[in-house]
Amino acid sequence: MQFHRDGFHTGDPARHAPIGTPANTNALPEEVDVLIVGCGPAGLTLAAQLSAFPDINTRIIEQKDGPLELGQADGIACRTMEMFNAFGFAEKVLKEACWINETVFWKPGETNRQQIVRHGRVQDTEDDLSEFPHTVLNQARVHDFYLEVMRNSSSRLEPNYARRLLDVEIDPAKADETTLEADDHSVTVTLERTDKAHAGEVETVRARYVVGCDGARSVVRKSLGRSLEGDSANQAWGVMDVLAVTDFPDIRMKTAIHSANEGNILVIPREGGYLVRLYIELDKLTEDERIASRQITAEQLVAGARRILHPYTLDVKEIAWWSVYEIGQRLCDKFDDVPTSEMESRFPHVFIAGDACHTHSPKAGQGMNVSMRDTFNLGWKLASVLRGQATPALLHTYTSERQTVAKELIDFDRKFAKMFSAPPKGSSEDQGDGVDPKEFQQYFIQQGRFTAGTAIQYYPSLICAEPTHQALAKGFEIGTRFHSAPVVRLADAKPMHLGHVIEADGRWRLLAFAGAETPTAHDSSLSQLCEFLAKSPGSPIRRYTPTGADIDTVFDLRAVCQQGFRDLSLDNFPSFLWPRKGRYGLRDYEKVFCADLKGGQDIFDIRGIDREQGCLVVVRPDQHVAQVLPLEAHDELAAFFANFMLDQSTR
Amino acid sequence: MQFHRDGFHTGDPARHAPIGTPANTNALPEEVDVLIVGCGPAGLTLAAQLSAFPDINTRIIEQKDGPLELGQADGIACRTMEMFNAFGFAEKVLKEACWINETVFWKPGETNRQQIVRHGRVQDTEDDLSEFPHTVLNQARVHDFYLEVMRNSSSRLEPNYARRLLDVEIDPAKADETTLEADDHSVTVTLERTDKAHAGEVETVRARYVVGCDGARSVVRKSLGRSLEGDSANQAWGVMDVLAVTDFPDIRMKTAIHSANEGNILVIPREGGYLVRLYIELDKLTEDERIASRQITAEQLVAGARRILHPYTLDVKEIAWWSVYEIGQRLCDKFDDVPTSEMESRFPHVFIAGDACHTHSPKAGQGMNVSMRDTFNLGWKLASVLRGQATPALLHTYTSERQTVAKELIDFDRKFAKMFSAPPKGSSEDQGDGVDPKEFQQYFIQQGRFTAGTAIQYYPSLICAEPTHQALAKGFEIGTRFHSAPVVRLADAKPMHLGHVIEADGRWRLLAFAGAETPTAHDSSLSQLCEFLAKSPGSPIRRYTPTGADIDTVFDLRAVCQQGFRDLSLDNFPSFLWPRKGRYGLRDYEKVFCADLKGGQDIFDIRGIDREQGCLVVVRPDQHVAQVLPLEAHDELAAFFANFMLDQSTR
Ligand SMILES: Cc1cc2nc3c(=O)[nH]c(=O)nc-3n(C[C@H](O)[C@H](O)[C@H](O)COP(=O)(O)OP(=O)(O)OC[C@H]3O[C@@H](n4cnc5c(N)ncnc54)[C@H](O)[C@@H]3O)c2cc1C
Ligand SMILES: Cc1cc2nc3c(=O)[nH]c(=O)nc-3n(C[C@H](O)[C@H](O)[C@H](O)COP(=O)(O)OP(=O)(O)OC[C@H]3O[C@@H](n4cnc5c(N)ncnc54)[C@H](O)[C@@H]3O)c2cc1C
Repeated sequence: MQFHRDGFHTGDPARHAPIGTPANTNALPEEVDVLIVGCGPAGLTLAAQLSAFPDINTRIIEQKDGPLELGQADGIACRTMEMFNAFGFAEKVLKEACWINETVFWKPGETNRQQIVRHGRVQDTEDDLSEFPHTVLNQARVHDFYLEVMRNSSSRLEPNYARRLLDVEIDPAKADETTLEADDHSVTVTLERTDKAHAGEVETVRARYVVGCDGARSVVRKSLGRSLEGDSANQAWGVMDVLAVTDFPDIRMKTAIHSANEGNILVIPREGGYLVRLYIELDKLTEDERIASRQITAEQLVAGARRILHPYTLDVKEIAWWSVYEIGQRLCDKFDDVPTSEMESRFPHVFIAGDACHTHSPKAGQGMNVSMRDTFNLGWKLASVLRGQATPALLHTYTSERQTVAKELIDFDRKFAKMFSAPPKGSSEDQGDGVDPKEFQQYFIQQGRFTAGTAIQYYPSLICAEPTHQALAKGFEIGTRFHSAPVVRLADAKPMHLGHVIEADGRWRLLAFAGAETPTAHDSSLSQLCEFLAKSPGSPIRRYTPTGADIDTVFDLRAVCQQGFRDLSLDNFPSFLWPRKGRYGLRDYEKVFCADLKGGQDIFDIRGIDREQGCLVVVRPDQHVAQVLPLEAHDELAAFFANFMLDQSTR
Repeated sequence: MQFHRDGFHTGDPARHAPIGTPANTNALPEEVDVLIVGCGPAGLTLAAQLSAFPDINTRIIEQKDGPLELGQADGIACRTMEMFNAFGFAEKVLKEACWINETVFWKPGETNRQQIVRHGRVQDTEDDLSEFPHTVLNQARVHDFYLEVMRNSSSRLEPNYARRLLDVEIDPAKADETTLEADDHSVTVTLERTDKAHAGEVETVRARYVVGCDGARSVVRKSLGRSLEGDSANQAWGVMDVLAVTDFPDIRMKTAIHSANEGNILVIPREGGYLVRLYIELDKLTEDERIASRQITAEQLVAGARRILHPYTLDVKEIAWWSVYEIGQRLCDKFDDVPTSEMESRFPHVFIAGDACHTHSPKAGQGMNVSMRDTFNLGWKLASVLRGQATPALLHTYTSERQTVAKELIDFDRKFAKMFSAPPKGSSEDQGDGVDPKEFQQYFIQQGRFTAGTAIQYYPSLICAEPTHQALAKGFEIGTRFHSAPVVRLADAKPMHLGHVIEADGRWRLLAFAGAETPTAHDSSLSQLCEFLAKSPGSPIRRYTPTGADIDTVFDLRAVCQQGFRDLSLDNFPSFLWPRKGRYGLRDYEKVFCADLKGGQDIFDIRGIDREQGCLVVVRPDQHVAQVLPLEAHDELAAFFANFMLDQSTR
């Protein structure tokens, strides 16, 4: 955490000084830059991201009266923990959440098929998949943490509750423009207030961009004329968070239980050490059937769970939350308002994200995680465009990246869910579609990276290079999220994770890994890179950083050396690597790192970085690797950014 | 973190449900159980500790108008971090504080003595001294974290500000009683209100116990007729927290600089990456001289610092806080109201803690740390006595333990400070008292454990056994704080630190390390211990746990096995190790741990636990090891607690 740069302030440093008009008035402004619809995980991730930019006028509306208090999703994948770390609250989740360390599999006994027996177990997350564990926490608490980030931001953003979106309209004249003009508020949104005091009042807000994070029955999606395609019928699940007494020994592990004839359960241990969630698979619904029509009661769910758990007992003392939850695997073909045929001539102004464009079964715990990553992908792009840093063409990459990912996930989810639901091979219910529990377990292991969210890889595009120089850093695969590893900070010898320098601040990271030469030598590739970045007219830092702004406002250059911290001294590096910043021109001492030689293998070993040549790893604001280059490839670096960044000198 | 035991609650689990009348009214009650004087680190540690017990009526007063905002101490020793972890806010300090990883030494150059040169460096904290680093953070933020603990406690305790203690009187008749009666409020305290609205109003509060945490000029101490003995004259220091630009390369390390003729500086890098504290040693004052009389200005301090740092530059942009700070190494001979000669016949009712009974030079960063540990030692003792769990004789151990520690620290501090202040050997100022910088560095290394606070060891007493069975667990030295090591929790396979089960909740921990036998066998020593604790009339758990209370209300039994977690199943252990608790009788799944086999060495290796026999380690509520016993030594265990615990069946 860096603070006090522009002067000492007493109190909590996570609470930023307010800038401009606070974005928390009860009345909505007539015009905003971004209007977010829906305070679910997708909407709040975007709101938290945009709240970091007080120069962007953001508002988020929600039809409910206030924040979520209970229920819904709870699984937090490793990749999501990394993202939470960028938002500054991973340590809170680590402390409060339940950690999923092991997944256990139960099936009908060989001799007595009426009794379930443990038949397998696997470490939930493979070693070094992420520096964070897989955790489980009430979705409401995740919302709380985002709301705190928003409240503490310079813009003091608070949701406007009790507002239901009725309609979204795009002015075709304005939307066709391919430049971003100050008066371009091409989207008109109609809202209805739903609280008693204002019931029925209708408001109109004009926005530059509207993002529909309004869930599976998204009004924004419908107003774009888009729909979710996929399963014709929904799968119904009973889910309940209970405080219960049981002699089932694996109640604190994530456990998949297949009974012979009573169906199956997924056990998710929950935060606090006592609470547990049980997912009980119900029948598949017929097309257009709503689960509500079945009038399933909590008692029925409990009875079902008890039958599946036999011979173990389950004595439910309190049901904290329960729901029958119906979901089909469905996907929207495009996540914005621009038809594929018009992508050359128009830029998107309305987006949909999260459940509004893809729905998953709860079994792989993807819904909340994928939804948040959608808007983490979109947030920095919107900010770059609105702040005049990048061309609006950047916004096309949101659909191209996230729709592809969603499709892959849905395909995975469909297979996983099917295996999960199928009766065990050889059971009385096996009609030839039975699954060998061993096979299910195998699939589970293989797909661990997928479920953890770390396997997501964006394809080459405007902002994701071809893997030409991938061999220089095999462990930082272009398109995947930057996979952190331990380093030691030179200036203060602090052991830390390199990936944790990537905050959700909309900045690009240029991570220069020094090669075999002495990094401080005047003619080293690292020094030459600094020279280029500092002085060349072609330097992206010079071209795209606003005049007068701190040197790392848009690009945050960091160096990683192979030496131990005692073998180097910061004052021998180019001053570009301990730059002066802020009101006082204070030096930033957090730009240079050394190998962590205590752990055995250092970051160069762990991530397969070429020790001879070193390399430059370009990381996007959403933590994904955009490019791997030789340190000397100044022109290629410049060319990469010239594709979509806007020269600041001409502005 | 365990929560939801008695029912699901939405919101922040660190915010406990209120119990009883909140202890945050503006008017003070006429009678309280404990009145704490002073909101410094000592007072707040005690208040936070006691706020966990809503059945104890605690209040804390402070002469200032509100919480501290700036300045004073900043060093947080590893041992203090462990204590913060017990209070539940270590992770906040880890995130916000500056970590001290390395200490660097500078001295006059060999060839040019007018220029300082780096001559040595040492890892600040030796490996495995603690699972926490040495950190540095504004004292005001430490206060904030304690205030948050108090505010979130069941008693909702808030300080009563703007109240100056005038006098403390002990009713000799009542104070002579050696039992604790309900109407025994033997201490009368007179306070003066100092805020405008109530200026001059005098209040009287009667208390069972009064704890003077009122700093070096303690009125409580004076009212006991006690005084600080030691140095006749104070050493003056200039201290300033600055935002500055410098080319001195070690500005982000803890650095001791001895210049040839300009004096010396201690550099303490601070939180946020920019702020730095400079301690500049000033002259020794003459007896009774006050530093104020010298009228030293901030400009003079800056000028002094610049001379010492030569040839490096220092351009101070902002002085966040500065002070000239005078301190002698002084100590009070007793920390309570009972004269040594009357200890057999009287129990203490008034205590002093922190700077009120010992003062240190700031150089070893002890003041705040030792002060907090004083009241961490006292807090659970007061709670045990007030809650009828222990005999008031327990209270005598506060002085005997803490006065001894303070004396050892002051002796250490004196030597350290002298070496620190002495001119370098061979300098022009060396009058034969010069210190070889190499020798200073050697002493620094040797004393690392002392400074970290981990070397503190209490001597055998009522609550600290003779080391008869120490050989069973060489790494858990009786009298020292429990030195944590990694384990894996059986029920959910969570890798964690065993020491982190010790919260600041006033409970004793019984840590049973299983020997070579199968721990789950009916006749294993572990099973037999459980049998004894659960059923024997001599069991301390049976004798000292109030009827109807959860089984772990007073003693928290945990088992640690040598097997990996996959080789054991919780349901094979005695139910005493997965006990049912709370309103619903839910099982507690956090009592059994396994070896962490991933790290190479497991806890048995790291802490030298006898693998053949195992052992029982008894840990006090303040995290210090009280006793190491064979698992079979049921009678010795019972005898240990019989010394000071009160049978609950007779109450
Ligand atoms: C009742 C329920 C139970 C669920 N249970 C599980 C579960 O057990 N396990 C699991 O993995 N996932 C579960 N999910 C799914 C999971 O919560 C979602 O995948 C995840 O929340 C998706 O996030 P989102 O932000 O895209 O959408 P949502 O979380 O659905 O958020 C959409 C938000 O938009 C608001 N909104 C909708 N329409 C409008 C409008 N017209 N105007 C204003 N606001 C509007 C909604 O009130 C809501 O707050 C559940 C979802 C629901 C609704
Ligand atoms: C101005 C100052 C600067 C310091 N600078 C440093 C430093 O640079 N480095 C360092 O290591 N240590 C420093 N210290 C010392 C360090 O802060 C103490 O060692 C530490 O705070 C001791 O904690 P304590 O709780 O025992 O006492 P204190 O922190 O002194 O707290 C005592 C509290 O009691 C209150 N109080 C006193 N008398 C009364 C009364 N009659 N009625 C009601 N309330 C009363 C005071 O206002 C104060 O809040 C400094 C202390 C002071 C006062």
